[in-house]
Parts: sequence; structure tokens; C-alpha cells
Amino acid sequence: MHTDRLRELLSAVQGGDRSVEAALAELAEFPYADLGFARVDTHRELRTGFPEVVFAQGKRAEHVAAILTQLARSGCNALATRVAEADAPAIVAAVSGAHHLPEARAIVVERLPIRARGRGPVLVVAAGTTDLPVAEEAALTARLAGRTVERLTDVGVAGLHRLLAAQAQLQRAAVVVVVAGMEGALPSVVAGLVRRPVIAVPTSVGYGASLGGIAALLGMLTSCAPGVTVVNIDNGFGAGYAAALIDAPVLEDGVS
Amino acid sequence: MHTDRLRELLSAVQGGDRSVEAALAELAEFPYADLGFARVDTHRELRTGFPEVVFAQGKRAEHVAAILTQLARSGCNALATRVAEADAPAIVAAVSGAHHLPEARAIVVERLPIRARGRGPVLVVAAGTTDLPVAEEAALTARLAGRTVERLTDVGVAGLHRLLAAQAQLQRAAVVVVVAGMEGALPSVVAGLVRRPVIAVPTSVGYGASLGGIAALLGMLTSCAPGVTVVNIDNGFGAGYAAALIDAPVLEDGVS
Amino acid sequence: MHTDRLRELLSAVQGGDRSVEAALAELAEFPYADLGFARVDTHRELRTGFPEVVFAQGKRAEHVAAILTQLARSGCNALATRVAEADAPAIVAAVSGAHHLPEARAIVVERLPIRARGRGPVLVVAAGTTDLPVAEEAALTARLAGRTVERLTDVGVAGLHRLLAAQAQLQRAAVVVVVAGMEGALPSVVAGLVRRPVIAVPTSVGYGASLGGIAALLGMLTSCAPGVTVVNIDNGFGAGYAAALIDAPVLEDGVS
Amino acid sequence: MHTDRLRELLSAVQGGDRSVEAALAELAEFPYADLGFARVDTHRELRTGFPEVVFAQGKRAEHVAAILTQLARSGCNALATRVAEADAPAIVAAVSGAHHLPEARAIVVERLPIRARGRGPVLVVAAGTTDLPVAEEAALTARLAGRTVERLTDVGVAGLHRLLAAQAQLQRAAVVVVVAGMEGALPSVVAGLVRRPVIAVPTSVGYGASLGGIAALLGMLTSCAPGVTVVNIDNGFGAGYAAALIDAPVLEDGVS
Amino acid sequence: MHTDRLRELLSAVQGGDRSVEAALAELAEFPYADLGFARVDTHRELRTGFPEVVFAQGKRAEHVAAILTQLARSGCNALATRVAEADAPAIVAAVSGAHHLPEARAIVVERLPIRARGRGPVLVVAAGTTDLPVAEEAALTARLAGRTVERLTDVGVAGLHRLLAAQAQLQRAAVVVVVAGMEGALPSVVAGLVRRPVIAVPTSVGYGASLGGIAALLGMLTSCAPGVTVVNIDNGFGAGYAAALIDAPVLEDGVS
Amino acid sequence: MHTDRLRELLSAVQGGDRSVEAALAELAEFPYADLGFARVDTHRELRTGFPEVVFAQGKRAEHVAAILTQLARSGCNALATRVAEADAPAIVAAVSGAHHLPEARAIVVERLPIRARGRGPVLVVAAGTTDLPVAEEAALTARLAGRTVERLTDVGVAGLHRLLAAQAQLQRAAVVVVVAGMEGALPSVVAGLVRRPVIAVPTSVGYGASLGGIAALLGMLTSCAPGVTVVNIDNGFGAGYAAALIDAPVLEDGVS
Amino acid sequence: MHTDRLRELLSAVQGGDRSVEAALAELAEFPYADLGFARVDTHRELRTGFPEVVFAQGKRAEHVAAILTQLARSGCNALATRVAEADAPAIVAAVSGAHHLPEARAIVVERLPIRARGRGPVLVVAAGTTDLPVAEEAALTARLAGRTVERLTDVGVAGLHRLLAAQAQLQRAAVVVVVAGMEGALPSVVAGLVRRPVIAVPTSVGYGASLGGIAALLGMLTSCAPGVTVVNIDNGFGAGYAAALIDAPVLEDGVS
Amino acid sequence: MHTDRLRELLSAVQGGDRSVEAALAELAEFPYADLGFARVDTHRELRTGFPEVVFAQGKRAEHVAAILTQLARSGCNALATRVAEADAPAIVAAVSGAHHLPEARAIVVERLPIRARGRGPVLVVAAGTTDLPVAEEAALTARLAGRTVERLTDVGVAGLHRLLAAQAQLQRAAVVVVVAGMEGALPSVVAGLVRRPVIAVPTSVGYGASLGGIAALLGMLTSCAPGVTVVNIDNGFGAGYAAALIDAPVLEDGVS
Repeated sequence: MHTDRLRELLSAVQGGDRSVEAALAELAEFPYADLGFARVDTHRELRTGFPEVVFAQGKRAEHVAAILTQLARSGCNALATRVAEADAPAIVAAVSGAHHLPEARAIVVERLPIRARGRGPVLVVAAGTTDLPVAEEAALTARLAGRTVERLTDVGVAGLHRLLAAQAQLQRAAVVVVVAGMEGALPSVVAGLVRRPVIAVPTSVGYGASLGGIAALLGMLTSCAPGVTVVNIDNGFGAGYAAALIDAPVLEDGVS
Repeated sequence: MHTDRLRELLSAVQGGDRSVEAALAELAEFPYADLGFARVDTHRELRTGFPEVVFAQGKRAEHVAAILTQLARSGCNALATRVAEADAPAIVAAVSGAHHLPEARAIVVERLPIRARGRGPVLVVAAGTTDLPVAEEAALTARLAGRTVERLTDVGVAGLHRLLAAQAQLQRAAVVVVVAGMEGALPSVVAGLVRRPVIAVPTSVGYGASLGGIAALLGMLTSCAPGVTVVNIDNGFGAGYAAALIDAPVLEDGVS
Repeated sequence: MHTDRLRELLSAVQGGDRSVEAALAELAEFPYADLGFARVDTHRELRTGFPEVVFAQGKRAEHVAAILTQLARSGCNALATRVAEADAPAIVAAVSGAHHLPEARAIVVERLPIRARGRGPVLVVAAGTTDLPVAEEAALTARLAGRTVERLTDVGVAGLHRLLAAQAQLQRAAVVVVVAGMEGALPSVVAGLVRRPVIAVPTSVGYGASLGGIAALLGMLTSCAPGVTVVNIDNGFGAGYAAALIDAPVLEDGVS
Repeated sequence: MHTDRLRELLSAVQGGDRSVEAALAELAEFPYADLGFARVDTHRELRTGFPEVVFAQGKRAEHVAAILTQLARSGCNALATRVAEADAPAIVAAVSGAHHLPEARAIVVERLPIRARGRGPVLVVAAGTTDLPVAEEAALTARLAGRTVERLTDVGVAGLHRLLAAQAQLQRAAVVVVVAGMEGALPSVVAGLVRRPVIAVPTSVGYGASLGGIAALLGMLTSCAPGVTVVNIDNGFGAGYAAALIDAPVLEDGVS
Repeated sequence: MHTDRLRELLSAVQGGDRSVEAALAELAEFPYADLGFARVDTHRELRTGFPEVVFAQGKRAEHVAAILTQLARSGCNALATRVAEADAPAIVAAVSGAHHLPEARAIVVERLPIRARGRGPVLVVAAGTTDLPVAEEAALTARLAGRTVERLTDVGVAGLHRLLAAQAQLQRAAVVVVVAGMEGALPSVVAGLVRRPVIAVPTSVGYGASLGGIAALLGMLTSCAPGVTVVNIDNGFGAGYAAALIDAPVLEDGVS
Repeated sequence: MHTDRLRELLSAVQGGDRSVEAALAELAEFPYADLGFARVDTHRELRTGFPEVVFAQGKRAEHVAAILTQLARSGCNALATRVAEADAPAIVAAVSGAHHLPEARAIVVERLPIRARGRGPVLVVAAGTTDLPVAEEAALTARLAGRTVERLTDVGVAGLHRLLAAQAQLQRAAVVVVVAGMEGALPSVVAGLVRRPVIAVPTSVGYGASLGGIAALLGMLTSCAPGVTVVNIDNGFGAGYAAALIDAPVLEDGVS
Repeated sequence: MHTDRLRELLSAVQGGDRSVEAALAELAEFPYADLGFARVDTHRELRTGFPEVVFAQGKRAEHVAAILTQLARSGCNALATRVAEADAPAIVAAVSGAHHLPEARAIVVERLPIRARGRGPVLVVAAGTTDLPVAEEAALTARLAGRTVERLTDVGVAGLHRLLAAQAQLQRAAVVVVVAGMEGALPSVVAGLVRRPVIAVPTSVGYGASLGGIAALLGMLTSCAPGVTVVNIDNGFGAGYAAALIDAPVLEDGVS
Repeated sequence: MHTDRLRELLSAVQGGDRSVEAALAELAEFPYADLGFARVDTHRELRTGFPEVVFAQGKRAEHVAAILTQLARSGCNALATRVAEADAPAIVAAVSGAHHLPEARAIVVERLPIRARGRGPVLVVAAGTTDLPVAEEAALTARLAGRTVERLTDVGVAGLHRLLAAQAQLQRAAVVVVVAGMEGALPSVVAGLVRRPVIAVPTSVGYGASLGGIAALLGMLTSCAPGVTVVNIDNGFGAGYAAALIDAPVLEDGVS
């Protein structure tokens, strides 16, 4: 349940515009809605400032659709990540207002207009072309949280001049998300250049000794540059979410 | 070289109060001072808002002392982390103004008074008593960067009521650093309760399948709660540094 | 061979109602039946209180069918786990009385009515929707052993209030099976709340640093809450079996 | 705080034998006592039936002593595990009533007499002589919880007749704790022989490919014999605790 | 080139029955035949007593066929292992005298009659039904080397009586090959019962913590029973080959 | 941009044959061309002597085609490695002058004639037939850089005479690339025989304990023969590239 | 109990030279002697042809001494391996007839003269000087079992001519034990040269990527040369034992 | 035996200045000298251009001394690496002409003057101060092979300007050795800047997720910059040796 709607409801009760019974009915699925196969955490938005997000990988399409519907019904925007290409049409068809963003492997239901707010732009940097889907997931998440997002793509450390040419963009970011596979060296270099937090996202791009992203993950964790924190391999959502939190204009606002 | 001092110097040149030659002499060791065995990055403070920090583990005591001296000479406060108990007296004796903080395994040279600033308190949470040295390193780092630091200790998930009793403290933090060993579950629980970024620090506390902190690290990276980012095992410094960046009152300020 | 049937047979011999020769013929496939490709342990029920169970993964459908038939012939109920969706129809067609439970990926032959007995309910808790097939396997196994089973689904630690709302259910369980992927933190939290044994089942749900369930496995093994024991990744059967053993009404009864 | 004492206190208040103020004073450190470096979970006994236990490894001797003192003060028996040989004298000297059990690497404060209760004996089996300290820790824990403990030592699978000679002892156990290093095969064999739960404890005994106990751990997790659950490498305490829970005479009693 | 044929050829030269030129022509592809994509080691039989064997996995069907043809042309029997089901017909069609043994995943060209010789039977023991393809590969290899092969199937340690019932067969073996997945405990038990060498073959049978056979491999390597040596996961060929070497009737005979 | 063309352009400007504006237009995509999804490093050839190479794995066919086109437009030869069989026709159709080399899994655009130069031949040694695709990738890369390439195939250490028969070829090589899977022992043996650098390429050929090439990689890294350096598993391109660098006739020439 | 002694005893009973009672007394500690902390398997010699051997690592000196004494009392020769340098004097002093072999890290009690028997020499090959302690342990074990032992030292693959110079010695061995650390390539090369079984012993000699012997272990397991079987890292005893079994002159003799 | 000396000897025989018998006596320890515990490869210099080097770690001081003496006797310079601080004095005392270089953990016997030759300088770059011992080992090895060595220290990627300031030095190197711990990102950045081969040496500097150098090793193996080859963790010797080979002025010269 979105904070704004809850505030409205409570004010109405306070002002006598709504009976306690009516309010209770509206709050029936609060703080969670029990769908049988899932307990949708409708209280999360109130608690953390961002609604529950559906991690679609491994879930059946009808389950994803049902949870999205439930979330959307509570008046928030809703997001499903890691949606399999093949499942997207069925979900989009089943959920009113949903649209598919294949480059980010996501489905979004935008009910509320997104107010652009934040202390400064979230800059999403991708080391290579193959890292783009993860970068797009991060950018989408931050955008849904009302952050301005900028992008910088294909600036791997083997050709430093491409990164150094973007110094101005780097310096104006409020927080930088750096997405990289292979040896994952880019976050160390970026964090040595900026004064703001760097969130490093290792990707599974690579082969052999990259061990499905473990090499990049270890490299980012052992970065010699302070200011770097790390999320799971390919976790663009987590990085975008944390970036949005860091970029919140007022502390109490959380992500939303 | 501290930003303030550099600004002062350039103003003096501009105003004719100092000759170019005199300024050059003062800037001789800028942007790095070459000690032979080390190139001290005296430009880092200007670039990132925090002076270079000496990671003392594996370095000889005389090297640590020489670098600290060099850093302190440029007018900044200076910090050495992971100082071996046995090396501390020699370093403290060799570096003017240095004092040893054994509980954080650190040596500090505080030249400049630390102005308390930041958007809100940095809360450092330790799951258990054995995690304290890492938590202290994080707290010290954030404090040196001018952040207000609060602490919450021994609130592991096996006794949730201890954590739930501290809800108010959790809610008022601008950023939460959560330090935990063993299964490292605490950051997930904390991130489910707050609206602000959570920096998770796995520790090497544990035995057997904890694999020297790998179990906690993996657990934190795969956290089901968004908003969690992770640093290296036992890396209290990195967590405190990132927390300070996140908590910066003005974006351009970086850590300092 | 089911204990009851064996007792009956021996009594008949004792009472002169059956000749030694007739009894020997009936016992021909005791203590194991040699099918050439398999030695079906028909003695297991007598020794451990539960008939041999067919782990179908990697076995040819006709082999699974033959072993189930052999087990069922000895008068016990029979169970095959990890039955591939594609193999199920052939097996069901070949084995008299078999039916397929796709949500648990199992095939069951229920010859004997299942007497409900046990010290209290076995509670099967699933952290997320994607953990359900493993949870169902555990629940089915315990039910076949004559235990009363309860369920609690989608109560991951990122939204603690969902778990805390089920305190009464947690407290009345005789044994709790907790199924979770990702960081696998739920068993620690549950074990901190109850007075009964907790069996933790890590699942392969997750990606990247979850390493196919290794992260959850390590987290459960290093749980800071005592009272937790662990089974293999995705081993719902093993957890349900151990839960049934723990919940046995009389010690000598074993699982059955 | 021990359940008995709490019941007594509440009855006194109910009966008017104690003022609310006096009761509150006595409950001052309930549900946890904040020692600064530790929040001792004095509520755990009420919640789970067993007081908090001090894992001494990595803790300073004075901290261990302070926590033990705090626990003992609340009227329970207290236990510290993994006590370093060198730390034991100082702790024993500092804690009234403490005595050291070097073979189990433990320190115990027995304030209350231990009532022997339980459904049947807990049998602790050690595969080899080198596994004995872990086995002793398990046996001690179960004994402190009021369970009758039996032992079977040096019955590794390379000489099966030694195990088979102990069939009677195996069959009368209510729960079997099997401690083994190297390939960790013993729990599989034992679980194939008994009708009761088997708790497997891998030990770090071995070299090379035993990988500090990982080989035994993996072997136990992948046991082909159902009924086996596993605890962390060398975690005798955890195994003894879970065994005591399983062996509880009445479900509500938990471990104590 | 088979030893017998080479001896014959040299005798013919010695006796003047063949010119040096004619012998040279016949020896043109000795000690290796260069096929461009492969150097077939036609000298191996002379050096080690067994012809080169084609490991077909990852090789194109036409390459496998060409190497088999080359080997067969030199007068030896020839063997290809790990032949993909789909590739077999093409290879059989292309190589004169080849036949496919699907249960062993092998193709064999038997040119020479196989003389049964050896000190005693090679006993191939399989822990479970799913281990059979690996066991069959071992048995086939030993048989091609002229060894008598016996089999014992589905005698896993969770039902020891099945193994103990085969004591006589175990005792008469000259060498025992033990094939097992999961925890791989069977070789330890067998080696504790016999006086002859045990070759342990871990299989990739299992899931989760079996790590594709690593758990069984580590278990076998850390076996507490001396006399066990180990080959690679699923390497039935290697085990059968080593068993044949051990079972050689005369030392100079090697495998053949 | 190829060095020759750049030199020509600058000379034209110097000699007044081209206006600065015209030169700038020609240099518009220097030092990188921004394609949106990629920043093609057109400066790399100038900086390192070899144009950027497209690692096609995980990239969409149209992206690969676009980057190849961009690279070719700057007048260099262009190379894409790890081209999926299925993607090749589309890429070849889209890029003028491209042809597909399936045995090396590569697509090449040869615009400039390749001048054969180098200090001596690059010898590419493959341990087995299955290692050929990786060896071909190495050979192709060195050839494109203007090196003379020789090959030696199927000379694994289990039949040493095949390698020893090629001593002359080994001795005349300027640098040796050794490609091997399984235990990866061949580089050690080769490096013990030659006076020139050996570049070892582990391959993913093998099964079980070869761990997808990790066994070969570790073996090569721990080689007892000095002079061996190692590249990533299956990284034929990297080995060929490094070999070409080592074999450069003049130091300033780099690879080209 | 040694087979010879047992045969003698039974003959005496048969012939009436000894009463059943007297024989029983002599057999009191048969089939195992219960020392409390250990069940010495005195039946092992009868079952497997070699007495139990004490793995001293991790055992207290007095326990090692007691078990050796027990074994020796039954009339066999006795062996303790992995004896810590510091523990040896106390054990030698406590056990009558014991002497210490520091180069093999062993203590031996030779009660019975060792009859030299076996099909041919056991050849123990060490790749480097640092591998010698493991090689010595293997050689000692085979010698105690009555095998003739030869040695070949420091013949690593980086200098093949040293190995090739010993061809005659290699060819006359009945079984070859090859001990090597680092990349562990030597067994592959040796197995390519001989017609007899090769037992490979990886050692922990090396650093970095040798991972404490794991690199050598993996290399040996994935050997491209058939005929190689492998034992645990540094397990000289196991290799010597298996070699002795393989070299047994008569099959029924087992090791002794 | 040094090539020069061997050439001299053979010329003397050719010219009649030395009898065959006298030459044979001088060649008695050629191609290897058998010291019992070691076969010193005196032929290596002839074969590969560099004498055998003693890896002292794990060898007894007297063995190191004996091998050094043997090598020096054949007229070459000799090198022992990884000499323990404590062992150095005894070795230096025992070997005539030896001196200890503690910063490189090496002992050197310089008999022959080292002629400076090579195509250009070998540049040894160290990322941090703690990497210096490994860098010194590399530099010493290259210097002993007659290469000119330059150094660049403490230029980690978190402060790129320190590296960029050394562009001229980077560009003039014939080969670059890059030594780095932690995330090991420096070789990628360097290889993106130069036209010559880069040899990457991961070090064990770091903690936690650096896994004793594994993180740096994986990062270097998966480098996105071509031209990088890698040696074992901390293997300064191997890197210096390979660098010297690459930098050889004439191909036939090998290292020397």
C-alpha cells in the first residue's frame, strides 16, 4: 500500500469522512495479501519506501501475473525482473497496464506518474556491450524510484581514454553504478576518480576463469579503491535500488 | 594535500601574497610523493575527498610510519588500518601526533579538528561480540570523515527481540553498516526494516563451513532484501568509508 | 516387506496355520529382491520403519516402474521422488495404483491406508514461492509416514511481520522443516523462536553468488541459532523423512 | 532467566507476595542484559528451553567470564564451548562455580541439579579416536539438557565388525549422533541400521582432499541413507543440542 | 601395431621371408600414423600392452571413425568410449566390424578373438542402478583386455546386508572396481572386507552438495580404508584398464 | 585507425595537401567511434599495434556486424572471435569482405594484405584432436598479425615419442603456443625442451575433475618448468596475440 | 592377530594341544581390543592381510603408544605414520622394540622378520627433492609388506632426459608409485612408458595455484594416460599399501 | 654446464688439445649430477639457456647448499629463490661466493660477469609497497639473465595519475612485468597502454575475498586487454625468467 494512499485513508478516518469499518475493509490485505502460494508484502512500501518487486526467474507466469496484479491493485507501480522472453506476452496480457521492456528483461506497471526527484543523477556505467541487460535493469529500477538516470557504455579499462573522456559526466553523478564482467576492474578505476559512492555490479560475462562472474565479483570485493560496495552477480535491480536509496532527496523518503 | 590548504595557496598566488616559485616549492610533492618504496597519493584528497589510508597489514612498521608522516605533513588527518599489535608502539613513537586505537586495530593522526557534519547518524550494528573489531574500524573511519556514529551491538537473528527493541535507533540512521559473521543473516533482516541503505560487512568469525567468512559473504550477496550492498570480509574501513560518502551533507563534499 | 505382514506371517507359522515351505516361498524376495539392475531392499521397512524410496532422477522410466512395482508387491506404500514430468505418464501407466503429484515431482502408490499418528504437526515453512516444489516433497513424505502436516509459505526474512504473524502455528509444531534459497537465513530466525527441532533445507533458488544453493547451504550450516540441522540442497524428501522420524509417537516405530 | 524461576516470580506477584516494583527490579535484565560488548539473551531459555551458550573461540577471556557470570546470575546452568586451553584457568577463576572439561574444550557452571529425563538414551558414536573432542562436546551438551548419554568409540567403516558388534546399543538409542572425519561414511551406515534420527557431525580430522572437513561434510549431506541430518564441521555442541531437542520427553519442554 | 604382428614381421625379415623394403612399407605408420587432425599412437600397444583408445566425447563422428579405422587396420581390437547416442550409427556404418554397446556408451571393433586370461576375476561393483553405465564401461574395458569379469549391482551402504550377502564373490576377486555416486562410501566398506586392491570410481550421480561427483571423489580419496586408489569421476574406462593391468597373469604382459 | 593511414593523413596536412578541416572530418571517429551500444576503440591500433577485436560470444549478431563494419571502415583488417555457428551467415552477409573460418570459430575481414614478418615462426602445438578449435584461433590471430605460423597436433604426453619426433620443429620456433586440456602437462614438457617462451592455453576438454579446464589451468600455472606463462581457458586469441607481440621484428611495431 | 599365529592356535586346538578355554583366553582381544579411546582392529590382519596402522597425526602421543603396544602384542609388526618430530621420542620410549624413521615420519615395531616376496620390485619415483618424505613413507610401507623396493628421485618432467635415462628400471618394476607436487605431470609421462600399474601420489609441494596439492591431485585424476590411479595428497602410506597389494605373489596373500 | 664452457671443451677435443678421456672426466656429471636426494640438471643450461634454479621453500638448508654448490661448480651463476630468512646464513656460509638478497628472498652465486644484453629494458611494475618482494625476485632473475631492468612502484589503479605520469617509461620497455595483489587490475590497464607483452604476476597480498591471491589471479586471467599472460601467484622468478626469454637479443640465446 502506497504511503500516500495510506495517509489519505487515515486522514479520512480522522476527519470522519470514512468509517472505521470502511477503512478496515480497504486495509484487508494489509500488511500482506495471502495468495496461497505467496504472501505479498503490501506493507513493504510503508516500511522501506519501495513496493515489493517480483523476481520472476523460476516462477510460473501465472504466479508472476497474480502477484503483479495484487501489487498494482494497492495503487503502487509494480515491477517484475528477470522475466523470461517466452513468459512476457502471457504476463502482459494478464496484467492490466503492464508493458514489457525486453532490453531490461523486465515488466512494469506504471500506475502513478513518476516524479523526478533525487539529489543528482544516477550514472550507470557499463564496461562492455554484453553488460547492457544488467545495466538496463539498474537504470530502470532507479528511474521507477524517481531518480534521473544517465548512462555511459563500453568504457572498459583496456581503452582508458574512453572513460577519461567522460570525466565531467562522472563528476556530476550523485552515485555511480558500474557494471562489468571479465576481471571487473572498472569500479576500482572509477572510484579512484570520483567523490561519490560507487556500486559495483559483477556480470556473468566471460568464460573459463571468469567462473560465471565469480572473478569479477572477487575483483570488486577486493578493490583497492575505497568507496566501492558490491551486489550479487548480474543483480542490476539491487544496484539500481541501492543507488536510488543513496540518492534520496530527503532521508525519510527511502526509495520512493 | 587537503582541499582547504590548496584553495588557500592558490588564493595567495592569485592575490600576489605568494610568488609562483614559493607555491611550486610547497606543491613539490603534489600530486604524489615518491618515497621510493611508495608513491603516496597526495592528490587523492582533492580528487575523492578523503586522504589515502595506509593498509598496514603486510607492510613493515618503518614503511607505515614513513607514509603516515608523509600524509600528515600535507596537512590532513591520517589513518593506518590493520596495524599489528606488535608494530603499534614503534609507529606511534615515529609519527608525531599518532595514537593507537587497539580495539579498531588502527593508528590515527588527528591534525585537523573534525567538524561533525552529515545528513544523519551512521549506525554501526554488530551481530556478535566477536565482530566488534571490524565494527570499530568502520565506526572510526566514519567518525574521521566527520560523521556522527551510533552503535548497536550483539543483536544476532537468533534473538530477534534484541534487534526489534532498537527500532527507533534503526529508523533514525542515515545509513546502516551491519557487521556479521557465521551465516551473515542480519543485513537481510535489517534491510527489511529500514528505508535507508544497508552496507553489509561479512566477518571471518565462525569455523568449518563458514570458510573464513565466505559463508557470510555469499549470504549477504544473495540477500533477499533489496538495498543491501556488500564489502570484503572484515573490511570495516571500506564500509565506514562508503557510509560516510553516502551520508555526505553536500554532494561535492565527498567523504571529507 | 511391511512389519505388519511379516508379523502376521510368523504368527501363522508359529500357530501351524502355514507350513515352513509356504512361508519360505512368500519370503523368497526377502531381504532383497534382485531385479538384475537393482537389488530392492525389501528388508529396509523392517530395519528402519520406512520402505525403500526410489530416487527417479537419472533412472530410466521402466526401471522406476519395475522397482515401484516390486516395492508395492511387498504390501507397502511406495514412493518415487524427482520424477521427470515427461516420465510420469509411462510410470503411472505401468504401475498399478500409482498416481502422480506434479507439484511435489513425485509418484505415489498408496496401498495401505495411512493412519494419522505423531506427537504433533510437522510444520513445513517455505521462504518463497519458488521454494514450493521442495516444500511439497517434504510435506508429502511426512504425510506418507503418518504425520499431520501444516504449511506456512512465503515468509522470507525481508518481511519479518509475515513470519511473526504465524507465531501460534510455529509454537504448536512438533518439528519444523524450513525450506529457503538465496541467503537461507530463515532457519536461524525460526530456530530462535521455537523450542522444537528445526530441519533446514537449502534450495537451488537464486543466481550468481547463490552458487546453485551452496550459499544457502553454508548459511544454514553456520547458523548462529542452535537446534538447526541441515540436509542436502533441494532434499525435501530427506527433510520430511527426518521430521517424521523425530515426530514418531513411540520410539520403536521409526518412520512408519 | 530460567522458566521455573520466572513462573515462581509471577506467582508471587499474583499472590501478592511480591510487589510489582520488586518484580520489575528482578526482571531488570530481562529479556536481555546489556553488557556493552554483548546483549546476553536472558529470554532465550524461556523462548527455546535452553539458555544462551557462549561460543568462546575468538572472544577475550574476560568477555567469556562476564557473560558466563551474567547467565549464571539468572539462575540457569551455563556453558562455554571452544574454550582455549590457555584461557580456561582465568575464566574458571573469575566465574564462581565454573569448572573446566578439557576433553570437551568446555567450561560449565552447574547451578541447578540436572534432572535426567528424555525418551531414551542419546548415543554419541565417534568413528575414530581423533574425533573424540567433538564427540565429548556433543555428549556434554546433551547431558546438561537432562538427557542420558551413551558412547560408542572407534567404529569406523573400514572395520565394520566393530560397529555390528554394538547393534543392541544402536537399537535402543532415541537419537544417534555420529561424529566422523575423513570420508564421513559412518552416518550412512548407521542410518541404514536404525529406526531413529541420525545427526551427522563432520570433523576436520584428515588431510589433503579432506579439505578441513569439507569432504566429510559433503559426504554426509549426500548420504544415500534417509534420516540423516547434518551440522557444521566440528559442531559437537549443535549436534548435542539438536539431539536433546529430539529426545525431549514432552514437546513443550524444548531442550531443558 | 599389435605385438604379435610385429614379432611375426621381424621374424619374417630375420628368416629372409620378407625384404627390408616390404617390412618398411608395412611399418610406414609406425610408431604413429599422422591423420592430420590426429597422430594415432600405433606404438602404444607395443609400449604399454593396450592399443590407444578413442575418447569420443567432443570429437566429431568422422574423426572418431577415422581413428578407429586406423587402429583396426593395425590389427588390434579397437575401442571408442563416451560415444554420443546420436553419433553411434554413423560411426558403426563407417567402420568395418564395429558394433555399438549403448549400455556402456561404447563402440568396439573386435578383430582378434579375446583370450580369457588373468589371475582371477575382476569384480565390478555398482552402488546403485544409476551407476550402471560407468560400471559397464569398466567391465567392457577389462573384458577386452582378456580378463574375466563379474558384477555386483545395487549394494549401497544404506542396506549393508545386500553387500554382506556377496562375501564369497568379494573374496574370490583378483581386483575389485567399486563404482558409486552420492557420498561414495562403498569403496571404504569393501576395502575393509577384502585382501585385494580396490579401484574406486566416483560417479556424477547425485545433486546439490554432490557437486557433480566431487563429493564422492573426495570421499574416496580420504577413505579410511587402505588399499583404495581412485580414478576420475565417471571414468569407468580408466578403472577397467587399471584393473586389467593389476590382474595381468604375467608381468610383462601389461594389459593385453 | 591504422598507423599507416594516420601517418599519411598527418603528412598530407603538413605538406598542405589537405586542409585541417578535411583532416578533422576524417578523424571524426577518432579516438573512438560511439555506436550507442559500443564505443569502438579506433585508437587501439595506434596505441597497441593491433585493432580492437570483437569477442562475439554473448553479443547479438547485428552488434557484431556493426562493430566489424566500423573497424573495417577505419582501414584495418578486422577479427571477430567466438562466433556462434548460427550467427555467422548473417554477419558475413552484413559485413562487406567478411569470411567465416568455422574451424577457428572466427570471422575475418582482410582489407590489407598481410606482410609476413616476425623473428621466427610461431609454433602452435595441440595436445589432442579436441583441442583444435582453440589452437586454430591462436594460429589465425598470429597469422593476421603478420607472423608465420606452424602447427604440431596430437602430441600428448602419454605418447612422448610423437613430441620427441618433432624436436627440430620445436627448436626453430620463435615462440611456442601449447594448447592442452585434461591435466595440461604438455607445456611443462615442451618448456623443458626449448629455449624460447612457451604460452600455455588450457582448454575445457575433459570431464569430472577437469572442472571445465580448471585442472589444466592450475597445472599450467604450477608448471615446474620456467618460461611458461598462461592465458585463460580456451583463450586461443589471447595466446596468439601474445605470441605475435613476442615475435615482433622491431620493438616499436607491437603486434601489427 | 597375525594369520600365522591364528592358524597355529587353531591347529593346536584341533590337535588337542590346547584347551578351548586356553584358546579363548588368547583370543580375548579378538576381533578387536577395546582401549576405551580406541577399538584396535586386531581382526584386520586376518581380513585384509595387513595389520591396522596408526595414523598418528592429531592423536596424543600416549594414545599412539598404547595402540602400537596393543598391535605389537598380537604378534604383528606395527606401524605409525605421520608421527610429529616432537612426539617420536616419547613413543619410542614407551613402546618396546619401536624405532623412529624421521625421513618417513614413521615409527616401526618390527617383531617378525620380513620375508621378501612379491612379483617384482615396487618402484617409488619422486619428482623432486621436496617430495621425498612422502616417497619414503610409500617405500617403507611396501617394504614392511615384504616387497622389494627401488627408488628413482628428482626426475621431474622439466628435464625429461633424467627420466628417460632410467628406462630399464622403469620397465622391470611390477608396479610404479609416482610422487609429485606442483602440476603433478610425472605420472602421465611414466604411465605412457610402462606396461604396469601406476599409482600417483600428489604432494602438497608448491604454492599459490597449487592450492596445497589440489592442482597436482586434479592433474593426476585427469591424466590422459590410462593405467593411473590416484591416492590422497601426501598419502605415501596408501600408495605403498596399494602397491604391495598389487604386487602380491599369491592372490590370497593380500598385503602380508 | 654453461654453453661457453662446453663449446670450449669440444673445440679442445677437436683440436687435439684435450684427450677424449680427459673430456669425459670433465663431463662426468653431464647431463645430470646425481646427489642421491637430487638429480641436478646440468644439461638445462645447454637445452634452455638458463641453469637450473633451486626453489628453496620446503627444502632443507643443507640440500639447498649442496645443489647450489653443484650448479656453481659447473661454471654457471646459480640462484636459489624463496630462501627462508632463517636458512640464509647457513647456506651463504656453506656455498663459496654466495650472497643473500633479503628483499628478493634469494641467494645468488655470481661466478661469471653478467653481460648486459637484451632488446630493451625489462620494466617491473609493482602495484603497491607490499608487492615489492615478488617484484624484486622478478627483477633479480631478469638481471641475472643479462637484461637491463627498470622499476616502477606503487602505481595502483585507484590513483591512475601515478601510472599515467610514467608513460615514457612504459613505452620504452621491451616487456613489462606487472605485479599486483588485491583485485589485480593493473595489468589490464598497462596492457591497454603499451605495444609490448605484459606478464602479470598476481600476489597473495590482500585478505578475505582475495583468497590468498586467487582473486588477483582470476582477474588477470580474464583480463579484457589482450597481450597479457599470467604466472602463478607470487611467482616473481617465473615472470622474470619469461621476460628475459622474450627480451632475448638473438633467438638462439634463450635466457642466457
